[in-house]
Amino acid sequence: MIVELISVGTEILLGNIVNTNAAFLSEECAKLGLSCYYQTVVGDNEERLTQTIKTALSRSDIVILGGGLGPTQDDLTKEVAANVCNKKMHLDEDCKKHIEDYFAAKNIKIPDNNWKQAMIPEDSVILPNPNGTAPGVIIEYGEQRVVLLPGPPNELKPMFTDHVEPYFRNMLPGTILSKTVKICGIGESSVEKQVEDLIDAQSNPTIATYAKTGEVHLRVTAKAEDEASAKKLLKPVVKELKNRFGTYIYTTDENVTLEMAIADLLIANNLTISTVESCSGGLLAGRLINVPGISETFKTGFVTYSNKAKRKFAGVRKSSLEKYGAVSKQVAQEMAEGMHDMSKADVVISTTGIAGPDGGTDEKPVGLVYMCCYVRGSVTVKEYHFHGNRAKIRETAVANALILLRECLLEYFSENTFGKN
Amino acid sequence: MIVELISVGTEILLGNIVNTNAAFLSEECAKLGLSCYYQTVVGDNEERLTQTIKTALSRSDIVILGGGLGPTQDDLTKEVAANVCNKKMHLDEDCKKHIEDYFAAKNIKIPDNNWKQAMIPEDSVILPNPNGTAPGVIIEYGEQRVVLLPGPPNELKPMFTDHVEPYFRNMLPGTILSKTVKICGIGESSVEKQVEDLIDAQSNPTIATYAKTGEVHLRVTAKAEDEASAKKLLKPVVKELKNRFGTYIYTTDENVTLEMAIADLLIANNLTISTVESCSGGLLAGRLINVPGISETFKTGFVTYSNKAKRKFAGVRKSSLEKYGAVSKQVAQEMAEGMHDMSKADVVISTTGIAGPDGGTDEKPVGLVYMCCYVRGSVTVKEYHFHGNRAKIRETAVANALILLRECLLEYFSENTFGKN
Repeated sequence: MIVELISVGTEILLGNIVNTNAAFLSEECAKLGLSCYYQTVVGDNEERLTQTIKTALSRSDIVILGGGLGPTQDDLTKEVAANVCNKKMHLDEDCKKHIEDYFAAKNIKIPDNNWKQAMIPEDSVILPNPNGTAPGVIIEYGEQRVVLLPGPPNELKPMFTDHVEPYFRNMLPGTILSKTVKICGIGESSVEKQVEDLIDAQSNPTIATYAKTGEVHLRVTAKAEDEASAKKLLKPVVKELKNRFGTYIYTTDENVTLEMAIADLLIANNLTISTVESCSGGLLAGRLINVPGISETFKTGFVTYSNKAKRKFAGVRKSSLEKYGAVSKQVAQEMAEGMHDMSKADVVISTTGIAGPDGGTDEKPVGLVYMCCYVRGSVTVKEYHFHGNRAKIRETAVANALILLRECLLEYFSENTFGKN
Repeated sequence: MIVELISVGTEILLGNIVNTNAAFLSEECAKLGLSCYYQTVVGDNEERLTQTIKTALSRSDIVILGGGLGPTQDDLTKEVAANVCNKKMHLDEDCKKHIEDYFAAKNIKIPDNNWKQAMIPEDSVILPNPNGTAPGVIIEYGEQRVVLLPGPPNELKPMFTDHVEPYFRNMLPGTILSKTVKICGIGESSVEKQVEDLIDAQSNPTIATYAKTGEVHLRVTAKAEDEASAKKLLKPVVKELKNRFGTYIYTTDENVTLEMAIADLLIANNLTISTVESCSGGLLAGRLINVPGISETFKTGFVTYSNKAKRKFAGVRKSSLEKYGAVSKQVAQEMAEGMHDMSKADVVISTTGIAGPDGGTDEKPVGLVYMCCYVRGSVTVKEYHFHGNRAKIRETAVANALILLRECLLEYFSENTFGKN
């Protein structure tokens, strides 16, 4: 079956935002075994939106629209889609109630124009939106489907996962099963090279590579008549990947993130953790605390951005700061050890570096980062050279801190037979 | 003049990569005053690519294609575009020489199929590519222009900036100017309502609204014969928006973020800041540290996720934790006051809440967050009810912490005449 994506929003046409929704939806549709031949971006303009939806319906089975479901005058997607499909709109009482509750919980008077979001085309499935006021809609248009999703990624993504994906899984014939093998600590080209022969020989299952910051995900997808047959197809390929990548694989569970895998390792082995950050400035703690239930293992995080804070809270020696500078192996190590003394955590990870755009020198350029991982008395210090702007350098530093943390934990477990991983 | 973007590549249709080229090109085209009504992504397929280029030429003056200029059989963009425009191809000696030099410098034998990249359609301007082997091309097709750019962002972006932009600046009449008015602390619908009359009456300048978490941005765009006339058109509209939104406007500078505006306020008034976070867990410090130069004002950040850490590092009383619970006004206030005692910062902001998905009760549901802002001895404590998943609640908490911080600073300055803001 053929799917086509339409992103609606002037802000994409003006380049104000990057269209991450399209990448997400494309990837999810590929997982469902849907073929995507076109993606279009169009503004909130009745005539052009009408034409774009008509064109999409002339060549695709499923049309997914993202954006333009807001309460403002600009937002036309639902009205235009209903019109193209010849569906009348009616006020849905449940949606109205959801909007009332949403604003009541925020203690805000409901703006008049928000009622527009409770208007639903006939012959539609309503998709609840716990993260906003705009419900999603699947319009059943003969054999075709027109899916309307809100534009904000934090609303669109969970709505797709929780409601659209199960809907199409039910509707589509056969079974498509995917398994994602998540790898960290090896670069994308290196991973690709190591699976080149498998990708060249693939037909069913297929293997696709997805590069994330610090990670590469390999998605193995099998099509079969039923789940058991699809699983049977997947199994030997996943096994082969496990052979090739070994402990670089941190999970084969689509829903497990790197920070979750690390939290599991820590909790299963009764280890507590603290963080002490300079250049990453809270983002590393922030990623670990993404994990629900992290309170079992996370003790304390310090953001010691200034030299004073490094001395006062992380116990870094004045002499080390003077002799080696704040961005140095020595200071990274003293930060980690000092944080251990302070928080008594079994494991500590520290970061110190130059995120830029200023502050770089020939000797210590922008992008230079030192990290130290302390695990029950043993320390590992590493030097990194990252590229990109301030945000990119900080993001890459956080990803690499997690990778270092995992490496040090695995090494610790391999040297201590009581480790369970 | 109307521009249309076509991105060519199966990897975008599969969601393997995010289409950052389109965002870059859109923004650059907007700056040139070109109106972009459509962006399309299509795979390396002759029939679909032909159709997509024909459709684009039927409705746009300029069509910019990115991708599909590589040496492999899959890469069809130049051949298809030349065919649609009825242009013959010839081997360009300069391009051939560039390819020879490129490979010679890398000490690699030239693959046979690379010669394809030196084939150029007639009536074309050749765009040199110092970062790769594929030259770019502008096909002059009557009054229309078809621009072909290589897909890799590190080739496409400099080629556009160095060659395509100057080409069109020369060709196009008039000037376009934008001003972005950034508002925080009022919801999107509410902002929209307050500018409805202006939007209804708009023609030149135009006003567009963009919602961000906790913020609304209004972009005012004017077209005129020259820069001075465009500025003259913008001025009264921006002034009117300033009248209507007053101190809710934190900047009218496109490049200034909320955290930058707050850092400016702090630095201009010689105030230092520390953060102490529970539910937001480092992300608030992380956002403040986005600001280059924040070291002038940022003292220390604590992530006191556990009760123990709250007591030990933020000086929260055991009795308060027992009597009111960790998520309470009292604890939020004690965290902020304790952090002030610890770090001696002039300003402290604290967060404590339930980010979920577990841990909520009837009395204290998921999404309940308390924050306290301490400014030189005076404290403000606020209760919030946020919605969404764990990530959304934390992101919204951080945005609202920044808004609270800004409000408290402005109030402090208005009560203390020495404040400069």
